[in-house]
Amino acid sequence: MAEPALSRVLVAGASGYAGALAAVLVDGHPYLELSGVTSRSYTGQRLDELFPHHRVPMVLEELDLDRHTEGVDAAIVAYPHGAAAQTVAALRERGLKVVDLSADFRLRDRATYEEWYVDHTAPELLDGAVYGLPERYRAELRGAELVANPGCFPTAAILALAPLAGHLADVVIDAKTGVSGAGRGATDKTHFVSVTENVTPYGVGRHRHMPEIDQELAAAGATGLVATFTPHLLPLDQGELLSCYATLREPMDVHGAFEAAYAHEPFVELVDRPPGVRDVRGTNLCRLHVHVDPRTHKVFVFAAIDNLWKGTSSQAIQNLNLMLGYEETTGIS
Amino acid sequence: MAEPALSRVLVAGASGYAGALAAVLVDGHPYLELSGVTSRSYTGQRLDELFPHHRVPMVLEELDLDRHTEGVDAAIVAYPHGAAAQTVAALRERGLKVVDLSADFRLRDRATYEEWYVDHTAPELLDGAVYGLPERYRAELRGAELVANPGCFPTAAILALAPLAGHLADVVIDAKTGVSGAGRGATDKTHFVSVTENVTPYGVGRHRHMPEIDQELAAAGATGLVATFTPHLLPLDQGELLSCYATLREPMDVHGAFEAAYAHEPFVELVDRPPGVRDVRGTNLCRLHVHVDPRTHKVFVFAAIDNLWKGTSSQAIQNLNLMLGYEETTGIS
Amino acid sequence: MAEPALSRVLVAGASGYAGALAAVLVDGHPYLELSGVTSRSYTGQRLDELFPHHRVPMVLEELDLDRHTEGVDAAIVAYPHGAAAQTVAALRERGLKVVDLSADFRLRDRATYEEWYVDHTAPELLDGAVYGLPERYRAELRGAELVANPGCFPTAAILALAPLAGHLADVVIDAKTGVSGAGRGATDKTHFVSVTENVTPYGVGRHRHMPEIDQELAAAGATGLVATFTPHLLPLDQGELLSCYATLREPMDVHGAFEAAYAHEPFVELVDRPPGVRDVRGTNLCRLHVHVDPRTHKVFVFAAIDNLWKGTSSQAIQNLNLMLGYEETTGIS
Amino acid sequence: MAEPALSRVLVAGASGYAGALAAVLVDGHPYLELSGVTSRSYTGQRLDELFPHHRVPMVLEELDLDRHTEGVDAAIVAYPHGAAAQTVAALRERGLKVVDLSADFRLRDRATYEEWYVDHTAPELLDGAVYGLPERYRAELRGAELVANPGCFPTAAILALAPLAGHLADVVIDAKTGVSGAGRGATDKTHFVSVTENVTPYGVGRHRHMPEIDQELAAAGATGLVATFTPHLLPLDQGELLSCYATLREPMDVHGAFEAAYAHEPFVELVDRPPGVRDVRGTNLCRLHVHVDPRTHKVFVFAAIDNLWKGTSSQAIQNLNLMLGYEETTGIS
Repeated sequence: MAEPALSRVLVAGASGYAGALAAVLVDGHPYLELSGVTSRSYTGQRLDELFPHHRVPMVLEELDLDRHTEGVDAAIVAYPHGAAAQTVAALRERGLKVVDLSADFRLRDRATYEEWYVDHTAPELLDGAVYGLPERYRAELRGAELVANPGCFPTAAILALAPLAGHLADVVIDAKTGVSGAGRGATDKTHFVSVTENVTPYGVGRHRHMPEIDQELAAAGATGLVATFTPHLLPLDQGELLSCYATLREPMDVHGAFEAAYAHEPFVELVDRPPGVRDVRGTNLCRLHVHVDPRTHKVFVFAAIDNLWKGTSSQAIQNLNLMLGYEETTGIS
Repeated sequence: MAEPALSRVLVAGASGYAGALAAVLVDGHPYLELSGVTSRSYTGQRLDELFPHHRVPMVLEELDLDRHTEGVDAAIVAYPHGAAAQTVAALRERGLKVVDLSADFRLRDRATYEEWYVDHTAPELLDGAVYGLPERYRAELRGAELVANPGCFPTAAILALAPLAGHLADVVIDAKTGVSGAGRGATDKTHFVSVTENVTPYGVGRHRHMPEIDQELAAAGATGLVATFTPHLLPLDQGELLSCYATLREPMDVHGAFEAAYAHEPFVELVDRPPGVRDVRGTNLCRLHVHVDPRTHKVFVFAAIDNLWKGTSSQAIQNLNLMLGYEETTGIS
Repeated sequence: MAEPALSRVLVAGASGYAGALAAVLVDGHPYLELSGVTSRSYTGQRLDELFPHHRVPMVLEELDLDRHTEGVDAAIVAYPHGAAAQTVAALRERGLKVVDLSADFRLRDRATYEEWYVDHTAPELLDGAVYGLPERYRAELRGAELVANPGCFPTAAILALAPLAGHLADVVIDAKTGVSGAGRGATDKTHFVSVTENVTPYGVGRHRHMPEIDQELAAAGATGLVATFTPHLLPLDQGELLSCYATLREPMDVHGAFEAAYAHEPFVELVDRPPGVRDVRGTNLCRLHVHVDPRTHKVFVFAAIDNLWKGTSSQAIQNLNLMLGYEETTGIS
Repeated sequence: MAEPALSRVLVAGASGYAGALAAVLVDGHPYLELSGVTSRSYTGQRLDELFPHHRVPMVLEELDLDRHTEGVDAAIVAYPHGAAAQTVAALRERGLKVVDLSADFRLRDRATYEEWYVDHTAPELLDGAVYGLPERYRAELRGAELVANPGCFPTAAILALAPLAGHLADVVIDAKTGVSGAGRGATDKTHFVSVTENVTPYGVGRHRHMPEIDQELAAAGATGLVATFTPHLLPLDQGELLSCYATLREPMDVHGAFEAAYAHEPFVELVDRPPGVRDVRGTNLCRLHVHVDPRTHKVFVFAAIDNLWKGTSSQAIQNLNLMLGYEETTGIS
């Protein structure tokens, strides 16, 4: 078989954890070529100086929409929520396929987006955006031109609950995440002394991933469900564990539903023991452990991912593979 | 006012984390005198060599029931579950007041105990034992002769949920705990490399603190409630956070109920922000944050304690203070 | 014996780790009364909200030199280096005894200070300042009016090496410190993700504690000695370990020298095993382990302190006790 | 160019950290085929169950010398010191090339080995063993049949100091290591609660890597040098930093010596800033930072490696590549 053609990929916003890892993964991908890395705050600095454990000796540049898109096939945009939409629109205008890591194109309903985030600056693109969870939208992702990469919590939550969605009467999602999920910004909350030997709930009752989880559980068949979701900050850097406690409307073959959903998925593993987040660190895997509890008649689903990998950057590569016609697992397994 | 009379207190099983801390707290208490410390495995070793950060220069001895009880008023027994009952019985026969840190006298129903633990070797003492949660059983603890010190998870769970108990239709308790809760035993699970940068659920669907939580929620007014409870092991040594998600049978004045329950409690703090476990480290405090969620109509209660302090050893001192007639907060505030 | 008279103490700069802990220790001291806490950046915020594990319910105010010194006996100033001198001078003018936690009065030689720090704004006070290491300057500290509290690394280094100082031909000091030593400032270097699972040397060849160490080793008898000193940042919050490797000019009774120096010191412990920093966490202790190495003929001295306690704030209280005529160990043992 | 022929490789002792990682690296190597994994204690267990983050679904078997060597070209032996020699001898008798991860063939002098370890059970093999540090013994390693893989500390120490060896008058090596270096054994010392928020020196004056460091510095040209070496246990899992403080006999072009030694080495990087151990985690790299100190006239060399990779298992693959005639960097870059 002939080798696939190469694609050139820009990473815009490569000075954050997610963008930098995306650049590393593009750089190591056999069919992708990293065409450039941009950053507003770290212009002129080398990526491997900013992140000494990454081995990409490329200099961060200020984004020049014309120069950085010439001869480039696709872009991964790693901007903050609200700031991404305009750049995504500009890149789309110049014909690039785009995976957007922000929330700007995840919520299908503009009003919901604007309620939880800010005014939308490119609402005309919402209809054409595909939600980038391949286990749910593989067909739409093949050939898609704009992909909204899911949030890290929704990634794990939807993978954990979609097989039950049509049967859910109630669900509590208790999430535990490492500090890298909060980004590189140095704040009181990310200071080592605040985090070590500590664990704290945050965003109680108002985390922005809530409407995204509800939207995608509804898309998977849930009716009238408002999920309870609370994240907690833990003293670890990468890794995310979601503990989901579901009440079903009626009895069902729970394990059968998970087998049916994931038996052929390359990146979802059903395991017999509760997973730890280290089991999946540095991988594109989601490990799921399902327990049907005889005492309470609830279903417990524990989902472990690496928030920077399957939760963000390696999932972006998985999406790019589908968008560009490569084998889905290339460069991330 | 005259100074209270001194009491002499033995700590049996002082080579574990809980017993050692109990010895330290007795040693620093103005009205208690540490009469001896015993251990089966570390006989002859000094407590401040085994735990260099503790400052009790006393030698661990093999328990001699006669010698170690002569002129002694009370004992704290820090033995493993199942192993404690017989020693407790022997100490009671010799007239000592006893706080038992094990589970052996926590479950009022012998059959339930034997279902979750082992055969009971001193069932005749069950009726006289008082459950050592002062915020619930203060009156009974004054002058009690045998106190079953609560488990660390039940301590936080009952404090978090008792004010709602009569109204609970359903509750999910997601617990996060440090490694000291697993004790000093060196195993694969407590090895640094297994724990660091990790988080793992354990005891899924079968943790022994479940029947204790159900018993005490029923005692507080819950009817027909089987709580969902799942602990998770975190990379920290001391500290325990319980995230409780409660569905109520009917509307109620939630914040009023907590105010009413805890306004005068010296060791329970209602706080406006979600607590971190470091906020209460090395204290006998339980910090509670209550959130009534408008999206889901659930009540969230977050409870933070130090598992070795309020969760075990300083609560034992709180109980001893009540049993021996001292001011409840002496030596632990 | 009559109870000593109370003294009122101001803590200026109480929003940092060192100042906040100083305020907590003053607040808990039987003979000191915390008269006020000030901060430039956190005016109006309560200390126990900023540091939930501290229990001082006092509001941080902007420093008002007249109001905050009225009826006040002493102050602890926890300002950054360079910024402290002027405030110290103003407080001294108003008659307060001052313990300055900054480096501004530690170096006796103005030129050396200005070479390593900035221009000195109160050089007229240098002569009267006493270096606040009680184990070296106890007599001068009794009744002193201005005390320069030592740096955390010099505290441990001088305690580790002073007994050998007159005999030192060469010394290498390899220091390991937790992140709290870097202060509350949120930076790339203090971000949890930068620190966890990492260890990095810093300030190589140019750390500002070097001239302070050399000055005090010379004061203890060293001649012509320039110590090698390199700190390393470790993934822990509090704690500091100095590993000192000394070459002696001639044979001497090493252990005897340490015994002679510290046999009667309340806060220096000579121990048989290498200490860990947890052994002294939250205490004013310095633990020293001395090893005379037969293979290399060097003397190894390992010194463990808590950088925020003996390394800073509890040592400030030790100094205040001496300055105000209280028993030296009051409130910190 | 034709693809190289495959080699079949046995990993004996694959249930420890080092052996398991060696098995993973063999399994992922393009020219090596993992023929089997053995273990005495975990017979019958799958490697990917024992180490869920490793993806090698192979069952651990009790070593059967005949069956496990049939058609096998080479073995990596990951046994404890003292226990390896006999198995190595048996594998050599059956014609396998062997990389031994233990210390059994590292010390050329049998008496020195027996002084620091135990009686040697295969001394006849000592002469033929090559010390497996490719940067020093590349020529001898090509085609070698028995390779003694260096200790993790000596690996970093020799790489840090060999370019200076002929000029060294004195050297202090202060080493910082993560817990994985202590192996999988669950003990008081590896318990999470003992390690977190702590740092402790160990093996003071008597660590077994001392004679290995001295031997190899002498082989590199040092005369009469006894290095000072002290390791410290840190709260991290993988990673090792050596801070070396060297006194030279006479002035020399230090940076030139390092450039000359390592300009063409694929796995040694000279860097401008002090390295952190995370910079090299999960790689076969050694990062060196060299500082010539004008104040003390010493040379500081900081060396960072991953103790399980360049310090052990990936270096074993580097050695195997040389022994079997593959390009040295295959499978580890």
